[in-house]
Amino acid sequence: MGVGPDSILIVRADDGEVHAMHNLCRHRGSLICDADCGSVKKLVCPYHRWAYGLDGHLIHAPAMPEDFDKSSHGLRKVAVREVEGLIFVCLDERPMDFSGAAEVFGELARPQGLRQAKVAKAVDYLVKANWKLVWENNRECFHCNSNHPQYIKANFDHYNADDTSPQIRQQIEEAVTRSEARWDQSGLAASHKQTGMTVFPDFDKGIWFSANRTVLVDGYLSETMDGKLVAPLMGSYTDPDVGTLRMRGLPNFWNHSSCDHGVSTRLLPAGPELTAIRVWWLVDAKAVEGRDYELSKLMPFWQLTSEQDWEICERQQKGINSSAYRPGPYSPYKDYNVDAFVRWYLQSIKTP
Amino acid sequence: MGVGPDSILIVRADDGEVHAMHNLCRHRGSLICDADCGSVKKLVCPYHRWAYGLDGHLIHAPAMPEDFDKSSHGLRKVAVREVEGLIFVCLDERPMDFSGAAEVFGELARPQGLRQAKVAKAVDYLVKANWKLVWENNRECFHCNSNHPQYIKANFDHYNADDTSPQIRQQIEEAVTRSEARWDQSGLAASHKQTGMTVFPDFDKGIWFSANRTVLVDGYLSETMDGKLVAPLMGSYTDPDVGTLRMRGLPNFWNHSSCDHGVSTRLLPAGPELTAIRVWWLVDAKAVEGRDYELSKLMPFWQLTSEQDWEICERQQKGINSSAYRPGPYSPYKDYNVDAFVRWYLQSIKTP
Amino acid sequence: MGVGPDSILIVRADDGEVHAMHNLCRHRGSLICDADCGSVKKLVCPYHRWAYGLDGHLIHAPAMPEDFDKSSHGLRKVAVREVEGLIFVCLDERPMDFSGAAEVFGELARPQGLRQAKVAKAVDYLVKANWKLVWENNRECFHCNSNHPQYIKANFDHYNADDTSPQIRQQIEEAVTRSEARWDQSGLAASHKQTGMTVFPDFDKGIWFSANRTVLVDGYLSETMDGKLVAPLMGSYTDPDVGTLRMRGLPNFWNHSSCDHGVSTRLLPAGPELTAIRVWWLVDAKAVEGRDYELSKLMPFWQLTSEQDWEICERQQKGINSSAYRPGPYSPYKDYNVDAFVRWYLQSIKTP
Repeated sequence: MGVGPDSILIVRADDGEVHAMHNLCRHRGSLICDADCGSVKKLVCPYHRWAYGLDGHLIHAPAMPEDFDKSSHGLRKVAVREVEGLIFVCLDERPMDFSGAAEVFGELARPQGLRQAKVAKAVDYLVKANWKLVWENNRECFHCNSNHPQYIKANFDHYNADDTSPQIRQQIEEAVTRSEARWDQSGLAASHKQTGMTVFPDFDKGIWFSANRTVLVDGYLSETMDGKLVAPLMGSYTDPDVGTLRMRGLPNFWNHSSCDHGVSTRLLPAGPELTAIRVWWLVDAKAVEGRDYELSKLMPFWQLTSEQDWEICERQQKGINSSAYRPGPYSPYKDYNVDAFVRWYLQSIKTP
Repeated sequence: MGVGPDSILIVRADDGEVHAMHNLCRHRGSLICDADCGSVKKLVCPYHRWAYGLDGHLIHAPAMPEDFDKSSHGLRKVAVREVEGLIFVCLDERPMDFSGAAEVFGELARPQGLRQAKVAKAVDYLVKANWKLVWENNRECFHCNSNHPQYIKANFDHYNADDTSPQIRQQIEEAVTRSEARWDQSGLAASHKQTGMTVFPDFDKGIWFSANRTVLVDGYLSETMDGKLVAPLMGSYTDPDVGTLRMRGLPNFWNHSSCDHGVSTRLLPAGPELTAIRVWWLVDAKAVEGRDYELSKLMPFWQLTSEQDWEICERQQKGINSSAYRPGPYSPYKDYNVDAFVRWYLQSIKTP
Repeated sequence: MGVGPDSILIVRADDGEVHAMHNLCRHRGSLICDADCGSVKKLVCPYHRWAYGLDGHLIHAPAMPEDFDKSSHGLRKVAVREVEGLIFVCLDERPMDFSGAAEVFGELARPQGLRQAKVAKAVDYLVKANWKLVWENNRECFHCNSNHPQYIKANFDHYNADDTSPQIRQQIEEAVTRSEARWDQSGLAASHKQTGMTVFPDFDKGIWFSANRTVLVDGYLSETMDGKLVAPLMGSYTDPDVGTLRMRGLPNFWNHSSCDHGVSTRLLPAGPELTAIRVWWLVDAKAVEGRDYELSKLMPFWQLTSEQDWEICERQQKGINSSAYRPGPYSPYKDYNVDAFVRWYLQSIKTP
């Protein structure tokens, strides 16, 4: 995995443990591994054959003196934590704390079965916008009505808004009450109750993650073009009426999961005005393409929504580049999550 | 119109007035308009539907509090002045004074009829040279003999030079005397008398513009490959013997007009070693392609001359990039206008 | 020849002398010559026709005053020295001393006949690595066993190593003794004895060059895929058993020559992470392609070896770009020439 100039090796060792290491030899600095993925017994640098174990310890360093200390020349480690099939890494030498995220995501992701999921499709995008614009775009649905026709059919996009009509508010409340009653019975209660338990993000408390389960509109069982299922139920779900699971982790991850499929999005800064984005469509590991799912039905809902957002972000970047740009006023009813992100970001770059 | 990172909206409102505004929303900074040109009733930001009038005032800002002050959130204005169909803009918050240019260009451009002109063709160039080299190249014809075979057939390219033979000087003087006598009669006198009235450029006096009418060689009625007309007479001209009208405005505009067509050139810096140049061929608005003019006859004279110049500038940029480059001596007889430009430029970047 | 932003004219004048000059006019800085190579009587700037002699002196400067001093406006000179057909240039205003290199290369290159050689083929590469990585790669054969299968068949690649088996050491010594005895008789003695006479590089003593003749393995008469000759003997050689001649000059040149062909490599920095490399295959000037040599047999040995090295260097550059890169330990047995280069480089950039 490349993060700016850094190349990170993520390896599952024979004992199942996940290790993350910088992908460069401690001898002359060569990249060790060129491949995107694969399987090896050890990690051997192709330049001069220094050899490392799957956990990064130095096994063999040719032509070094007898007294050379191999133990201090293993691959440089990167902080890593696996949570229900999601792997989080942090390159900072003083990495953020993963334990809160492990708790929150762990509980919600468990019934979704991401550990037993497989990648049905991954699509890479290079979006000409700073990653913060992409994140801000994700943090409000103020733009959804004008820009995401397929999305607003499935979602109460005015949810959390205070300016909707009493009629819509009533519809939402009824749907929420009905769904939450079912989830209480089916054991998904803990999950949906995460909602609102934490303020997100909260720099001082180390809360860079949040998750919640929310309802879809009547007639929609999955975030698909027509609301119908497009793959077998995932994880431990037995009833499709699980709403939609939303997980997000600053600064660069979100997952939107329905009962039958999940969609993960990862942002990587690729320049001041460039973001490398990968979107993965996940289905149950046992599902077979052509028999259990078709990409043409699985993908459009989030592919369209994603690409509409990338276009918005590129247009915004062009505007913001202007010498005439000055930050404008946020809507207190619609932009508050953008505002909260900006405050978190400012704190995170100020703190030494 | 893009000027470096800035995108400028130039709008003719219903009352005919021209407005220039920065093309970015005051809410979240998105570009408002993607299109190169078109016609709309109001300017609506596609991100969250903030709506502005054609003069830039804010009409509607959704989801803002009751007490939000719309009057202070209109599109940011750019200084603009229309002069006989030519539109000048200045992005500086303390813009240059347009009134002198309006006076000088106005009088000369009026008989040329640029207000009633249409664009027959526009060609975009991306020239690998700093814009100042392109401007300097335009300010001397010392290079014309070696580089512009078609241009020197039509022009006394040694005009203003002091090293030409007595025979050529006499030819020029006769042509000038003859033409000016006719122009005095036909009402173009004021125009040609602009010549020499101002020193150009003069930073202290705010003179960034100049214009003059000059003679073509015998047998040339238009700046075309063979000197013959290639389109109907423009504006209020009734006689083709109007010489050639030259207008120039620092830092990035010039127009060369014959009796039947005009050619405007605009430079936009696109990087330290890159200039985006657009050249427009203008004819009378009523002229019909195929019937009244053919691009294959209208364009070659200035297209060849322009492209020869771009090649010169790119070659000069490569030389100037060298670590061995030191500014050389100017010819006092041929490079004096280059010298004057350099002095103007140095003053203009020094003055706070 | 382009060196970063600098373009250098290398001209052989009518008297046979080689001149090197900056390729830009002293008037307005234009590049004078666009062509890669060719033949002219004088050097004329295409912008305004300033004309220079082949040694760079200014012949004609149009439109300059009577008292203009032409003698101080010749093309700016670059230090140059021709040594047996090899041309060395130095752009520094205080250029390095060429005399030691002339002595060492001169003696070794004379029998090789590079003055009477011709270019059979030149290949250009743009390698995504800093030039120092390419140089370091050239200074050790620690990587050869893993990366250059064709090279190690022809060479005692463990030569100079102290960790080879007694058996291999004995083989090498026998081959060396046998060859050197023959070379003593054939007059190549002086050449091979250069080996070890100087420590290379030595910044304080101005030693930026080294050369030596070394043995090939039994059965290899030339550095080719099968060890057989691929072209007629070069220079004054009468016996193919001349081993291989190795010349190198910091910071950017090496030549590997067999009895029948030579291969020169030149590095030019093209960016912090980019090196423009040209590799030339040289044969006797009288050799005719198709009759005396085939490119398909002449080229593969060094083409493969070169391209394998470029791939190594690009992979190393990617690793070194990492924020986690720290210089690692050198092998005292294998990396010592890399270490010596790094020390030379540090001294050369420190010294004012």
